[in-house]
Amino acid sequence: MQITNWQQSAPGVWRLTIGEPQGITPLSLMGVSPKTVALQQMPQVQPPFAWESIQLEEANGCLILSIPLDRTEKLYGTGLQLLRMNQRGRNRYLRVNSDPKQDTGETHAPVPFYVSDLGYGVLVDTSRIVTLYCGSTMRQEETQSEDIRDRNTDKGWKATLVASRVEIRIPFEGADVYLFGGPSLSDVVARYNLFCGGGTLPPKWGLGFWHRVPTLYTDQQVLEEAEQFRQHDIPCDVIGLEPGWHSQSYPVSYEWEKSRFPEPEKFVKALDQSGFRVNLWEHPFVSPKSELYEELKPLSGSHSVWGGLAPDYSMPAAVELYKKQHEEQHVNIGVSGYKLDECDGSDLTNNSWMFPGHAQFPSGLDGEQMRQMYGLMFQKMTAELFRSKNRRTYGLVRASNAAASTMPYVLYSDLYDHKQFIRGICNSSFSGLLWTPEVRRARNAEDWVRRMQTVCFSPLAMLNAWGDGTKPWSFPEVEGTVRHYIKLRMRLLPYLYTAFATYREHGIPPFRAMPFVMSASEIAEAEAMYAEAAEQTLNTTDAAYGKKKVREWDDQYMFGEALLVAPLVEGESEREVLLPSGIWYGLETGERYTGGCIIRVQAGLERIPVFVRSGSIIPMMPALSHVPPLDTRVPLELVHFGDGMGEGNLYDDDGESFDYEQGKFGRWKAAVTQNAAGVYSGELIGTDGEPTSFSSVTWRFAQTRL
Amino acid sequence: MQITNWQQSAPGVWRLTIGEPQGITPLSLMGVSPKTVALQQMPQVQPPFAWESIQLEEANGCLILSIPLDRTEKLYGTGLQLLRMNQRGRNRYLRVNSDPKQDTGETHAPVPFYVSDLGYGVLVDTSRIVTLYCGSTMRQEETQSEDIRDRNTDKGWKATLVASRVEIRIPFEGADVYLFGGPSLSDVVARYNLFCGGGTLPPKWGLGFWHRVPTLYTDQQVLEEAEQFRQHDIPCDVIGLEPGWHSQSYPVSYEWEKSRFPEPEKFVKALDQSGFRVNLWEHPFVSPKSELYEELKPLSGSHSVWGGLAPDYSMPAAVELYKKQHEEQHVNIGVSGYKLDECDGSDLTNNSWMFPGHAQFPSGLDGEQMRQMYGLMFQKMTAELFRSKNRRTYGLVRASNAAASTMPYVLYSDLYDHKQFIRGICNSSFSGLLWTPEVRRARNAEDWVRRMQTVCFSPLAMLNAWGDGTKPWSFPEVEGTVRHYIKLRMRLLPYLYTAFATYREHGIPPFRAMPFVMSASEIAEAEAMYAEAAEQTLNTTDAAYGKKKVREWDDQYMFGEALLVAPLVEGESEREVLLPSGIWYGLETGERYTGGCIIRVQAGLERIPVFVRSGSIIPMMPALSHVPPLDTRVPLELVHFGDGMGEGNLYDDDGESFDYEQGKFGRWKAAVTQNAAGVYSGELIGTDGEPTSFSSVTWRFAQTRL
Repeated sequence: MQITNWQQSAPGVWRLTIGEPQGITPLSLMGVSPKTVALQQMPQVQPPFAWESIQLEEANGCLILSIPLDRTEKLYGTGLQLLRMNQRGRNRYLRVNSDPKQDTGETHAPVPFYVSDLGYGVLVDTSRIVTLYCGSTMRQEETQSEDIRDRNTDKGWKATLVASRVEIRIPFEGADVYLFGGPSLSDVVARYNLFCGGGTLPPKWGLGFWHRVPTLYTDQQVLEEAEQFRQHDIPCDVIGLEPGWHSQSYPVSYEWEKSRFPEPEKFVKALDQSGFRVNLWEHPFVSPKSELYEELKPLSGSHSVWGGLAPDYSMPAAVELYKKQHEEQHVNIGVSGYKLDECDGSDLTNNSWMFPGHAQFPSGLDGEQMRQMYGLMFQKMTAELFRSKNRRTYGLVRASNAAASTMPYVLYSDLYDHKQFIRGICNSSFSGLLWTPEVRRARNAEDWVRRMQTVCFSPLAMLNAWGDGTKPWSFPEVEGTVRHYIKLRMRLLPYLYTAFATYREHGIPPFRAMPFVMSASEIAEAEAMYAEAAEQTLNTTDAAYGKKKVREWDDQYMFGEALLVAPLVEGESEREVLLPSGIWYGLETGERYTGGCIIRVQAGLERIPVFVRSGSIIPMMPALSHVPPLDTRVPLELVHFGDGMGEGNLYDDDGESFDYEQGKFGRWKAAVTQNAAGVYSGELIGTDGEPTSFSSVTWRFAQTRL
Repeated sequence: MQITNWQQSAPGVWRLTIGEPQGITPLSLMGVSPKTVALQQMPQVQPPFAWESIQLEEANGCLILSIPLDRTEKLYGTGLQLLRMNQRGRNRYLRVNSDPKQDTGETHAPVPFYVSDLGYGVLVDTSRIVTLYCGSTMRQEETQSEDIRDRNTDKGWKATLVASRVEIRIPFEGADVYLFGGPSLSDVVARYNLFCGGGTLPPKWGLGFWHRVPTLYTDQQVLEEAEQFRQHDIPCDVIGLEPGWHSQSYPVSYEWEKSRFPEPEKFVKALDQSGFRVNLWEHPFVSPKSELYEELKPLSGSHSVWGGLAPDYSMPAAVELYKKQHEEQHVNIGVSGYKLDECDGSDLTNNSWMFPGHAQFPSGLDGEQMRQMYGLMFQKMTAELFRSKNRRTYGLVRASNAAASTMPYVLYSDLYDHKQFIRGICNSSFSGLLWTPEVRRARNAEDWVRRMQTVCFSPLAMLNAWGDGTKPWSFPEVEGTVRHYIKLRMRLLPYLYTAFATYREHGIPPFRAMPFVMSASEIAEAEAMYAEAAEQTLNTTDAAYGKKKVREWDDQYMFGEALLVAPLVEGESEREVLLPSGIWYGLETGERYTGGCIIRVQAGLERIPVFVRSGSIIPMMPALSHVPPLDTRVPLELVHFGDGMGEGNLYDDDGESFDYEQGKFGRWKAAVTQNAAGVYSGELIGTDGEPTSFSSVTWRFAQTRL
């Protein structure tokens, strides 16, 4: 059947209500408040296909929405997909899953939102599992006979034929479907993020280095390990405590274990005085030995997990109990945030402890809905708690869903493949998510330093030593390189902070996959040039050029507006890099590249390939041991790259509170010009005088390397 | 709510109808006809719990049946589970899946039937996916506070608490649930198989050796490769052709490719004259270039697969078209059977080509149902086709479900872990299934010979060289051992054939996991003795004894009533074996063991550990190059093991037709006695004179080895 009742929901955003959606959904739970002004400033658009080409069909009691696909169209997003970037041709079963080892679509953060490189996106707003058939199903009547090959003899045979529609299985109760316009892919994602309230702006300290200590450490051991960071001259802003801080874990108490932490407030303050924030690990399931237990019991689900309660946090009374306890015992004594673990239990993989899909909750939600929504619920509760103190938080979470753009949380996983971890940075950018490729351990110094390099160019730079007891200096032969990159992250903090401000204001993610900055045709052109060059060198000794690979470019990404990061993993010393058009420099090598093509770069262990766009201005600060307190000003350095004009951006505020929402922030355009004599000059153009966090401003012009 | 409407459905089998079951189910599709006489001869039983302890609950629109669990009870079955044997504590999501790499319950053959070592079994008869929570969920009110441990400090912490109920999510439309009584686990499975019509009896040639040739072989290449088996003195009964025999594959035509097989009938007859049967690979999806296409098109599903039709074989008209084509082009020219591939597509794993769950079929079935039932449908159609000719078939299938006991089909997988392949032999025995650990390739000669040894003690001994072009003599250094075990399989054919007859008549599988022959307490006692011995030798150099492992004994199995097989895999030269009580001999070593305990055995590459029970009589024949034609008699040898009395069984018939259903078969008890002077004598006691397949009967008494 054709659909006629699309309603404009915001500029460039249309809503279709199918069936009778019930209960909470990601958008309703998060109470999203679209950034209408920013949306209005975006280009006016229509979707790239006729409205009437979208069809809705009832098939055996379920509703199938189908949306046309162009033959070469690529589809991205659907949440934290660790196993591939282009989802075209795949079934995406968007169930939350704590152990997503197979490429089914299941993930820690299943977001029923995909974006097309033709410049539109589709979101299904539901608390239920959505199945997206991303051009992986073929209707009989749309099957092209010329596509059918004989596998016996035809080398061109492919298992998945080119389908002409996406099919979306809508939950039986119905759902609201949103269509987001572009015109570019970047605009689609920006619209989605702005519609969800804009991107998150972490506190400045959240962008420093993080370290999680072994689980059974006592307060003294933590303090000693923190001190070692200062002795080793390794910056660190946040110390994370793991299960051992609880008096009971699995299920948890949320209460300090007195034998290990006899005086929590004193402990948190001692760390604070050395410039460390404290982050606390927790999970949803409440121990009978917790003081919360009796009051939460009637507000909890029918099934226990590890013997603990699974509270129904769609109920305000449960939220109040949780918040009150956390406020009194953690937030009020100075704890900076949480690591929200285990909220991604599925009942299908190796978990045989999670409440089942048929579990019943007092609000009327069932287990399937609660599992899909648990990650969002915990993010929301804790974020609200800190907001009520006018303090920003930044933390970790293992589950998310749609409408999470405003949440100050970064996803992580117990999986550990470095390539997948890099892909996570790329893929999270399509779905309003942040991801950390946390470092835990390494097979050798090479693995160690490669992982450390990657994590320093990610939303949250963390060593998670909870189980392995590693330190940044665990491999002494590469300690210098590790220190160098942690310090480089600190130096780049004004730049990264500005990128997050752009996320908040304009919905443009601070970390972006390549389709954000290169159109499909630009990528295809670069690939064709490279293939042609490969053909010409086919008979040389460099056999690698001879192989035509289908690449997704899911192993490199933009870090802010000016830097492109192309990590290497253990065993690699060179790689291909897809460079957008323009002139680029190796950030630390100064080598000059002409973009719009694929290049090959070498890098020894001491280097991660990072490229800076000519004409950029990067705001930087000294490599302090931690983000300085509010009243301390630091020198600002503005580094201009290339030999022509330049421009950049700078955002600044107090770095800790929400006062920026009342206009207490500054935004500057940095501009470099050259006079007739060839002399460079730089200017910060803004409305708000000098940036208040900085004691001085220094310019460096016409650089080709840092 | 309590349930009161259990109905006796057969002796020791009770049925409960929940909701309003619709459409076809495994039992209705297969039209099962319980072997009532055999069931009546079994012990009278009641289930080991009170009827009223079974509960049915409606939770958020779905029906949950829950059944009590004892604290130490173990649960087996649920189909071809390759990753574990005891399903207690696990969620089993019983969806058909062609790539079942994770332990979710998904499998090629999801059978919603589990058996308890307390002596009962539960079957849900439905064409839909069933989720069984096998003691993996814990209701809040049943959570025992003493089970809740602190993971921080308590080494006894476990992720899965001991749950007190199985929870079964019944499909929304309802289902019939069957409860099978024991008293023993073996009785439960026998009852299930008898209820489904009894086990299958393959043709004798099906129990010989099989070889599948490379996919693009021509008729001449096949004939030459067949001849090589005779030259190498390696028995072989069946040659399998792979996709290349079709004029089109993926999708398939079911028509011979004339360039490779210009004269199919002549080809099949030529092979037949050399003692080879021909087995044809196929899959369900019909090419537009097949003559069947146009007529099948209106009888097919809404979605194509690889561009081919997915016919609706719940419709008699589609079945007739399929059968007629297969009859004329394959069966009538002498083809012996099929390998039914790709009927296990799921839409969630790496398959992005299968019709989706919401696909619509002309009969009203949807894609979920069709996927779950496809394997059964193809088994049934082809089995009926051969039956209509009074010819037995034996073949391979990659998908199955409940009620498959009568089907002459053996499951296989593209997975290839040797330990999992051995576990498949054990686990299929609980679910009315057969499984082959087919050999395809090997990392080295050791891997090769270990896999060959295992497959020779399995329901279908096959080298599948379709992609690798391997031959039994591919590793010349172990060719002698490979030949030895293929010949040993031929020698044991009368014994194995008798075991299958017992499967048909009494429902007792020819291959059985250890819980069939040892009770939970017998296994526990053997394990306790072994642990005690280990404790005593803890400080010796043999550290392996010092480790107390939780073993499932899912790597050894009974082969018929008298033999126990304990395979080794690459890298192993010794292993633990759980021996049932009694005296046992190494079948080829003659070493004597006292059972009721765990032993440790060594075996070089030239041996697979196989044990024979003292007092057994094994009927054997010469190691012919293939099963002889009907009119050829071979000598029978009856081998008696041990130094006391002995007994065994022998079944015989024409080995090819269904005439046994009209009583044209013989069954004998073999008995060995010793007179006062110590002289042994043997007797075949039966109703039907001498076995007609045999030219002579020779006895060997008091053997300790072959």
